[in-house]
Amino acid sequence: MIIILRLNHRIFRDKRITTHLALTARAFLADKIVYSGEKDNNFEKSIIKVNERFGSKFDVEYIKDPLKFIHENKKFTIVHLTCYGINVNKFVNKLKNENLIVIVGGEKVEPIYYKISNYNISVTKQPISEVSALALFLHLLKNGKELDYEFKDAKVKILESEKGKSIAKF
Amino acid sequence: MIIILRLNHRIFRDKRITTHLALTARAFLADKIVYSGEKDNNFEKSIIKVNERFGSKFDVEYIKDPLKFIHENKKFTIVHLTCYGINVNKFVNKLKNENLIVIVGGEKVEPIYYKISNYNISVTKQPISEVSALALFLHLLKNGKELDYEFKDAKVKILESEKGKSIAKF
Repeated sequence: MIIILRLNHRIFRDKRITTHLALTARAFLADKIVYSGEKDNNFEKSIIKVNERFGSKFDVEYIKDPLKFIHENKKFTIVHLTCYGINVNKFVNKLKNENLIVIVGGEKVEPIYYKISNYNISVTKQPISEVSALALFLHLLKNGKELDYEFKDAKVKILESEKGKSIAKF
Repeated sequence: MIIILRLNHRIFRDKRITTHLALTARAFLADKIVYSGEKDNNFEKSIIKVNERFGSKFDVEYIKDPLKFIHENKKFTIVHLTCYGINVNKFVNKLKNENLIVIVGGEKVEPIYYKISNYNISVTKQPISEVSALALFLHLLKNGKELDYEFKDAKVKILESEKGKSIAKF
């Protein structure tokens, strides 16, 4: 079970970034995204719509108190993605069979999250995007399984095309 | 030489996504991002600022006419990242020694770009984010070299920390 925890979502400023995070989490085979900050019904609906069309049981849930959420899920190993952390290559193998909560911050993450995380992990030592950090982390965690994965419950499947667009409907 | 071509940037709607794309391109060792759509001085300045602080000669340039740009750079192989394309694993090895223009669209990409690209390449067959697609493509292209890469001209280096934040200044 892999849960992404997105901190401090702001509807106006973060709408597209949080959507890109959730789509990345879903396509890279995480199970769920929970987010704190402002509750955003349009964001939630847009992800559910993608599930209905392209398959998967990927879940999205708003939570008020991320620290309480972490404390209530003690069987999970807590990973925090930050460019200040330790190179992802050093830890990713030992995380492959764990239940994970993967914390993905925004611009400012409170110091407490660095402390309570079992692993602060970096994807490059550069300022990048939480979207690309999450993609790389999940790619390494899943051994690239996402690249040709198909969701069994899809109504629409995207087919590989050399030029143009091709889909199949079920 | 790897140039990212971002189509149709809109200042209001795409500001953060295009910034995340450029930061990802820089950290994953592309050489340059060119973008069309609306010219955005604040976006350009923010990337130059990151270079000044964290190093790299990563370049950013506005272009009016992306098709003309492609026609003028005939020695480049054109790659278009799209979920409708062919699995990245099939082509990435043969692209490792090429000069590349990597086209990264927004929501709508005109059909001409599917036609003029030498390779339409997908990173998963799901709707994801252009940011995560670009990160994965460059990661595979560079054999993961970005994960512990250091820019020699950095004034500030981020150091690996188990908890908290640590930097070195030069």
